[in-house]
Amino acid sequence: MPELFQVVTTAEANARLAGHLAPLGRVETLPLHAALDRVLAVALYAPGNLPAFPRSTMDGFAVRAADTYGASEGLPAYLTLCGEVPMGRAAELTVGVGQAARIHTGGMLPPGSDAVVMIEHTQTLDAALIEVVRPVAVGENVIPVGDDVRMGELLLPRGHRLRPQDLGGLAALGVVELPVVARPRVAILASGDEVVPAEATPGPGQVRDINSHTIAALVQRAGGEPQPCGIAPDDAAALEQMARAALAAADALIISAGSSVSTRDMTAAVIDSLGAPGVLVHGVAIQPGKPTILAMAGNRPVFGLPGNPVSTMIAFELFVAPALQRLLDAGPRDLALSQARLARNIASRTGREDYVPVRLEQRDGELWADPVFGKSNLIYTMVHADGLVQVPLDLAGLYADEMVTVRRF
Amino acid sequence: MPELFQVVTTAEANARLAGHLAPLGRVETLPLHAALDRVLAVALYAPGNLPAFPRSTMDGFAVRAADTYGASEGLPAYLTLCGEVPMGRAAELTVGVGQAARIHTGGMLPPGSDAVVMIEHTQTLDAALIEVVRPVAVGENVIPVGDDVRMGELLLPRGHRLRPQDLGGLAALGVVELPVVARPRVAILASGDEVVPAEATPGPGQVRDINSHTIAALVQRAGGEPQPCGIAPDDAAALEQMARAALAAADALIISAGSSVSTRDMTAAVIDSLGAPGVLVHGVAIQPGKPTILAMAGNRPVFGLPGNPVSTMIAFELFVAPALQRLLDAGPRDLALSQARLARNIASRTGREDYVPVRLEQRDGELWADPVFGKSNLIYTMVHADGLVQVPLDLAGLYADEMVTVRRF
Repeated sequence: MPELFQVVTTAEANARLAGHLAPLGRVETLPLHAALDRVLAVALYAPGNLPAFPRSTMDGFAVRAADTYGASEGLPAYLTLCGEVPMGRAAELTVGVGQAARIHTGGMLPPGSDAVVMIEHTQTLDAALIEVVRPVAVGENVIPVGDDVRMGELLLPRGHRLRPQDLGGLAALGVVELPVVARPRVAILASGDEVVPAEATPGPGQVRDINSHTIAALVQRAGGEPQPCGIAPDDAAALEQMARAALAAADALIISAGSSVSTRDMTAAVIDSLGAPGVLVHGVAIQPGKPTILAMAGNRPVFGLPGNPVSTMIAFELFVAPALQRLLDAGPRDLALSQARLARNIASRTGREDYVPVRLEQRDGELWADPVFGKSNLIYTMVHADGLVQVPLDLAGLYADEMVTVRRF
Repeated sequence: MPELFQVVTTAEANARLAGHLAPLGRVETLPLHAALDRVLAVALYAPGNLPAFPRSTMDGFAVRAADTYGASEGLPAYLTLCGEVPMGRAAELTVGVGQAARIHTGGMLPPGSDAVVMIEHTQTLDAALIEVVRPVAVGENVIPVGDDVRMGELLLPRGHRLRPQDLGGLAALGVVELPVVARPRVAILASGDEVVPAEATPGPGQVRDINSHTIAALVQRAGGEPQPCGIAPDDAAALEQMARAALAAADALIISAGSSVSTRDMTAAVIDSLGAPGVLVHGVAIQPGKPTILAMAGNRPVFGLPGNPVSTMIAFELFVAPALQRLLDAGPRDLALSQARLARNIASRTGREDYVPVRLEQRDGELWADPVFGKSNLIYTMVHADGLVQVPLDLAGLYADEMVTVRRF
């Protein structure tokens, strides 16, 4: 009774699914304070210059630069004070030849002036006269109009995931209503006659539902909205009914399949019945995670993830997370990758990709990846880990002290 | 009018503050689905064994291992079928000498049996008889009771930040109500006569409030609850009144100070007046970010962050984030650090730590850090960056191609 896999590589599996996936395109508008980590639905361009006026970067005096040329400790330039630039208003003064106006950091350069002399390079002689002991060039200690951003410039591309600095940058330009992509609703259905809810007390032979909880949190991390849909029994009709109901109210469906061959085959058949084109991939050349199912029911992706908790997380990261990025129309998540030095050898087999959970540790200013060797049916293998190291298809292993790329979770 | 800094190192500044900080100790209880990224308020121990019964890891037959010793293709062991183990229930059978019971992956080993023969290593001869062609050892293809976790074992330490796999691991043991630390409430007060809300249209000399938005998002990331409290004018009495009101309803206060020396001095004086012990640090040997103020008003930390947007983010990461970890009583955030190869030289000055914003890029399977050289008063310097590289106190710079540690944000 061997499973009828037609095993494909990770790249091929993702390519088959990607060919059918399209961005959801549902947009919602959020205020700045609610938009952290959300994905921009449109490119944003600068509605104005930043700064909108020339600003002083120093406490000192706004001057005409030419009036300071040649000034030194021995031969200072003498300038008469013509007033002070208030913060937050335009100065009601013009700096004439031989004149200077007091200005503070961030103040608006008054008409007539073209540079700022730092206060440290001046001496105040009396209420109306200062000495300047160093020359300034035109534009010195001044941020010109549009130096940060020019009007019409691209601020952030469509698909960008908003970070704290982005929100600050948008606030600076008064962009306070942000069109972001709605979170994909991801239905999660556990299955198995032996599986009971986490809050139940399992009887003999029963186990609590682990994967619904792990998957829901992974969906949240990936920018989706998890919709837990309960636990289906090992019965094709019941599973199909629950799967259809779950998918009807969602943009994608994840079924955490049972772990025996017969229930996995049943899951594949049920998924295939949910709608054309049906199952696209059944079996991937990875270890653990081989019995992964990728499918489309109409325009909605459906995933059959292996029942083992370790395999579930790996298959999620490799297949579900990229699919959700596509539904979100979000940029790549490359930066979830980290480099670290491998603490021990990892043996593998050529012809398949191995994924090994690793614990990350900062030692002597370097990041080390220490393999956590555990069975893929033990959830605490993952609890003791911080990420995954991939052993590529064509390698028989990785050596201690090699630099490896870690996919964090 | 030079500022009266007594500049200290980052480590010394943090040590002075840390001496006064204590965990808040407010606890709330959350269900699993709401607990992602929250910090555990207590250590959690296993209330039972996982698994609670011996489970098969294969589809096959539960047997007495001794009955298979010496079995081979040429000389198979013949066993009589005594029934099937249902999923999710205890088998109502006992495996006797010379007997075997059908079992599925995840099924509960029936009494009498001590190993599982994979279905691939058997032949079914008729409804009552199988051939076993390979021997199994006691315990083979079986997860024994407590192999994942033993009753009483530490599951997760106090201060642990909950990840997807942790939620799965807790679900497995029926730990569905989680005591987590309440988020520290962090009041955020902008200041400056020139600063207007982001939604306002600035007049001449006015600028929009950037830092309240950046800081609020950074507080969220660090596990706190931001409480924006508006914009105070450059007036000591008004600033003090707003600061007192903000702090009264919060666990910590961040004032985004004006950028001129006089407003910074005023901010320091106001902070000092909020309560003993007052200002602990005024000036840190970092660039940018030097004019940072760290203080305690009673048992509440108060931060005066420099007004420049780049300095604000750096000072937040270096001083506010660790303080919030302490209020949360959370473990270290070391893992926010990444290693990358520096794309260009960075010049610095010994005697101070330089922090340079870098853009991270994945190239040829390696992470590269490309310095973003921009003025610290330009917010888009940070929008173009993904993290910070530190040039240590005693180095005059870093060289291209060196491996550096990047603090991501």
